[in-house]
Amino acid sequence: MSHSCPKHLSHLLVSPGGAVDLDDIDPREVGFLGDEDKVRARLVEDAEAIDRLQDRLYAEGKRALLVVLQGTDTSGKDGTIRGVFNATGPLGVTVTAFKRPSEEELAHDFLWRVHMAAPRRGTIGIFNRSHYEDVLVGRVRNLAPKEAIEDRYRAINDFERLLTDNGTVVLKFMLHISKAEQAERLQERLDEPEKHWKFNAGDLEDRKLWGAFKKAYETALSRCSTDHAPWHIVPADRKWARNAIVAAIVRDTLETMDPRYPKMPWKPSDFTIT
Amino acid sequence: MSHSCPKHLSHLLVSPGGAVDLDDIDPREVGFLGDEDKVRARLVEDAEAIDRLQDRLYAEGKRALLVVLQGTDTSGKDGTIRGVFNATGPLGVTVTAFKRPSEEELAHDFLWRVHMAAPRRGTIGIFNRSHYEDVLVGRVRNLAPKEAIEDRYRAINDFERLLTDNGTVVLKFMLHISKAEQAERLQERLDEPEKHWKFNAGDLEDRKLWGAFKKAYETALSRCSTDHAPWHIVPADRKWARNAIVAAIVRDTLETMDPRYPKMPWKPSDFTIT
Repeated sequence: MSHSCPKHLSHLLVSPGGAVDLDDIDPREVGFLGDEDKVRARLVEDAEAIDRLQDRLYAEGKRALLVVLQGTDTSGKDGTIRGVFNATGPLGVTVTAFKRPSEEELAHDFLWRVHMAAPRRGTIGIFNRSHYEDVLVGRVRNLAPKEAIEDRYRAINDFERLLTDNGTVVLKFMLHISKAEQAERLQERLDEPEKHWKFNAGDLEDRKLWGAFKKAYETALSRCSTDHAPWHIVPADRKWARNAIVAAIVRDTLETMDPRYPKMPWKPSDFTIT
Repeated sequence: MSHSCPKHLSHLLVSPGGAVDLDDIDPREVGFLGDEDKVRARLVEDAEAIDRLQDRLYAEGKRALLVVLQGTDTSGKDGTIRGVFNATGPLGVTVTAFKRPSEEELAHDFLWRVHMAAPRRGTIGIFNRSHYEDVLVGRVRNLAPKEAIEDRYRAINDFERLLTDNGTVVLKFMLHISKAEQAERLQERLDEPEKHWKFNAGDLEDRKLWGAFKKAYETALSRCSTDHAPWHIVPADRKWARNAIVAAIVRDTLETMDPRYPKMPWKPSDFTIT
């Protein structure tokens, strides 16, 4: 178990087995982070540290890190990837966006496509949405029988256990925004022509089900925050705070993993370059 | 045909059907780029421009860009990815490293695994090595019958035509280093403990076949530089020059592609957010 969370953020970690009420965490209140300018400066440092640690992870080639990002529409999943991982770049980092499943994917169990996207050793994998959609939208919109959905929580925990037992550290972040903030962000997508492409009328349908989605999130967070693959609830109305929180936890986790440049079974003097 | 090359770099473009002699391009001579400090500053600008253009490519969602990087061991494929694409980040950029094929891959034609890694619309795909290995190491080490390898050049051109006909712009870069530079870089990997993991005794075996690889490259460059998917020979002994050249051509190409934020079939006033 190599995941790790800085002390000042530990209240964002969901206790395994505990009940979850999202109202307990105010999406806008990030005073616990301290001064905004310092937090922003620290974010830059953390992003650069993640880049250096990723290089060691890649060199070591034995373990992987999986970062799962979940959150309602406009919660800032893309923005988090940019803010936290742009300094690391695309080499050794793979982003998988899970969209509506294809017919081929639906012809398999719900974890099939997810397993295929698991990060290879030495790399960081980022899931932009994930298998959790199958207990979120799946539950809210009754996309599968109730009993089948009930079974999925255990299936998810077992699957994540398989990953962690095989050297992949799993960090899960729920980007928690307020309903008011979502309204502002959706309006922005309508107001700015360059953001029109991001606007999806279906998002308004989901917004009407805000309460049902909240409940589905609470259930998923409660049942699937485990010792081996914990959930974090990230107050996400402030973009800088959201990025800073995710970056700090990713950095802390990579430092705890402490990947090493491998020792090779030869001496440099064994070779002569001619 | 949307690829494009700035005028001062057009001598690096391999003319379709023309003979290629790698000795014609000095890997160390980059005076045509001008002052080094200015070139470095321009590289930063180009990398940021690529990031912005990538966002438009993603928003448009109709076309893709495939960047193929080939070059001998230590030629700087990873370094180019970092130098040119780190500002773009992992969102919408996918790197595929082609290693020794698996049994499953070998049980299919040589383009099967390559096709699966083709970039989806809206994204940039980077190949770190590629299908060209099958006419490079494949030819030098006789990994397939001579006639089968002969057929591959046409198969490659046909395959790249399929991609370009379907909206993927293909840019191919051969990172051209000198034998002396390779010796220095290999020695560095022996001298610096943090680089030991990059050293591969097999690279010394390939180095002994320098002349044969050079010939195989010349043949591939000559037969597979097409109007639809051109090859560029990048003098790559100077890392800053190498990155600057690739970035300038990628930027120029993306600007010529000119991806647009899509116009949506609705008016903002059609929606009210409640």
